[in-house]
Amino acid sequence: MSDLPGAVEITEEGPREAFQIEPGPIPTARKIALIDALSDTGLKRIQAASFVSPKIVPGWADAEDVVAGITPRPGVSYTALWFNPAGLQRALAFRDRLDVFGSITVTGSEAFAKRNLNRDHAGQLEAMRKNVAGHHAAGVPVTRVSLQAAFGCNFSGDVPAAQAVRALDDAMALAKELGLTIEKISLADSMGWATPARVERLVGEVLSRYPEPRLSLHLHDTRGMAVACAHAGLRMGVSAFDAAVGGLGGCPFAAHPGAAGNIATEELVFLCEELGIDTGVDLEALLEAAALAQDIVGHVLPSAMIRGGGLNPYRIEAKAA
Amino acid sequence: MSDLPGAVEITEEGPREAFQIEPGPIPTARKIALIDALSDTGLKRIQAASFVSPKIVPGWADAEDVVAGITPRPGVSYTALWFNPAGLQRALAFRDRLDVFGSITVTGSEAFAKRNLNRDHAGQLEAMRKNVAGHHAAGVPVTRVSLQAAFGCNFSGDVPAAQAVRALDDAMALAKELGLTIEKISLADSMGWATPARVERLVGEVLSRYPEPRLSLHLHDTRGMAVACAHAGLRMGVSAFDAAVGGLGGCPFAAHPGAAGNIATEELVFLCEELGIDTGVDLEALLEAAALAQDIVGHVLPSAMIRGGGLNPYRIEAKAA
Repeated sequence: MSDLPGAVEITEEGPREAFQIEPGPIPTARKIALIDALSDTGLKRIQAASFVSPKIVPGWADAEDVVAGITPRPGVSYTALWFNPAGLQRALAFRDRLDVFGSITVTGSEAFAKRNLNRDHAGQLEAMRKNVAGHHAAGVPVTRVSLQAAFGCNFSGDVPAAQAVRALDDAMALAKELGLTIEKISLADSMGWATPARVERLVGEVLSRYPEPRLSLHLHDTRGMAVACAHAGLRMGVSAFDAAVGGLGGCPFAAHPGAAGNIATEELVFLCEELGIDTGVDLEALLEAAALAQDIVGHVLPSAMIRGGGLNPYRIEAKAA
Repeated sequence: MSDLPGAVEITEEGPREAFQIEPGPIPTARKIALIDALSDTGLKRIQAASFVSPKIVPGWADAEDVVAGITPRPGVSYTALWFNPAGLQRALAFRDRLDVFGSITVTGSEAFAKRNLNRDHAGQLEAMRKNVAGHHAAGVPVTRVSLQAAFGCNFSGDVPAAQAVRALDDAMALAKELGLTIEKISLADSMGWATPARVERLVGEVLSRYPEPRLSLHLHDTRGMAVACAHAGLRMGVSAFDAAVGGLGGCPFAAHPGAAGNIATEELVFLCEELGIDTGVDLEALLEAAALAQDIVGHVLPSAMIRGGGLNPYRIEAKAA
């Protein structure tokens, strides 16, 4: 009774998430080492930097040095994050090694947008129209629609699926008006409000309205629900996820400093492997990268698998016995 | 497409699990304080002590003092754990405040039984026959069948559902032969091998064979799968769970010292609440008990909710705004 995909596409966001929120300072060389370690795990998409204001996010003041310093691995797509034309220009300087594409970003909660972007929903759509024009002027395609606070918001409470879909509809209508081909829709649980039931509801709505773009989930483990939510998504056929090795990250905008980070990549990979879903990732190599991430940030990371490890070593030993 | 129960029965095993594994020493008064705090959360079943050899489990050398020291709350059933006639006698001394009942315990993995109990499967069944006789001689009913290592074993690998069911069948046949009324079947993921798919498979098998006894899941979060496994169980109608506040515990027998503990009670309660399933528990009071547990053991507990908190405070604030 489920539509489990045969394979999933995982975008590793651990480095970008971590270095924007960890107090640091973390040496540039160690950031590069983590990204290079992740490149060797079989992950095919890695968010490698954030081109944001160093005043607001000092942890990414060295974004250029990080991107210049990594050893790009053939077959791995490296992405980055930016919020304005200046950030886009910084990313474009690395067009040879970054997969540069734009997004239309809206939020399911106007309160969240007002608080973090100082714009209401209409203002955000207007900003996105300009954002698309800026990308097109630079010859950069806009191929993604991202819905932040898709499930709930610390400032306005639950986001019902109908409300989330309305915001998404506006973004998709804008994309259509501007002649964009949207390849991916991302539903982001920015503040950890998702539960399996809410995932089922919203994913169902979105898939029935927009069956063409690949649907992606960006889950935070704030309340321990991320793996269960990912499973709910998988059961409905969702085949793309953001994740963060070791469960790195958190939401710097959510007035919630102790919150757990993104779904741990190794827990997502383990779940998929055990369900027979291909991830392309070598779990043991990923667990080594998670241990490296923990060493780099200098504190215990939330992933249970960092301590629990995988099952395959036990299976191999049991077979040998 | 699911059989979500209307209500679940949660057995809080945090104190018993924690004080057998934490290096301690933890003052008796603090153990009592935790159990009393848990009694005030709305939890209806609390495992309050382990009557085991103080040489093997020094953390429970004060079991008598703990049970004598708690303030039993009307409507709360306090249980304890024991493995032999001496332990049963110690429990019986507190028959006025403990819910004393026996179990037939078998394992899905003979390797696990041999390693931890020094018995093969036949030997374990023989021991259980004597165990039942001992309980009956003391006037204590045997009402539960418990299957350890129900999903997998660090020493023998995966436990296929058919193999688990064979062990369970033997236990149920023994119960029938001895004229017992089994009220509860417990499937224990002793070493963190369960995944949602494995839970679905085994729970399906067990429910179709034994629809009468209440089915209970005892889940460990070793690989971050516990909440997803609980959700899989809930979807199939499972209405009883063991859990440990804060995610206390781990498996002292699994040669796996860094492993995460049981499913965190607060994450299970949160999941149920959000799915509309009654737990009887006040989540905010439970989160306070989790913070107390963390303070008592003196290290960070694995529960994400200890740091993330619940959603209701945000909802209340959002409504007021």
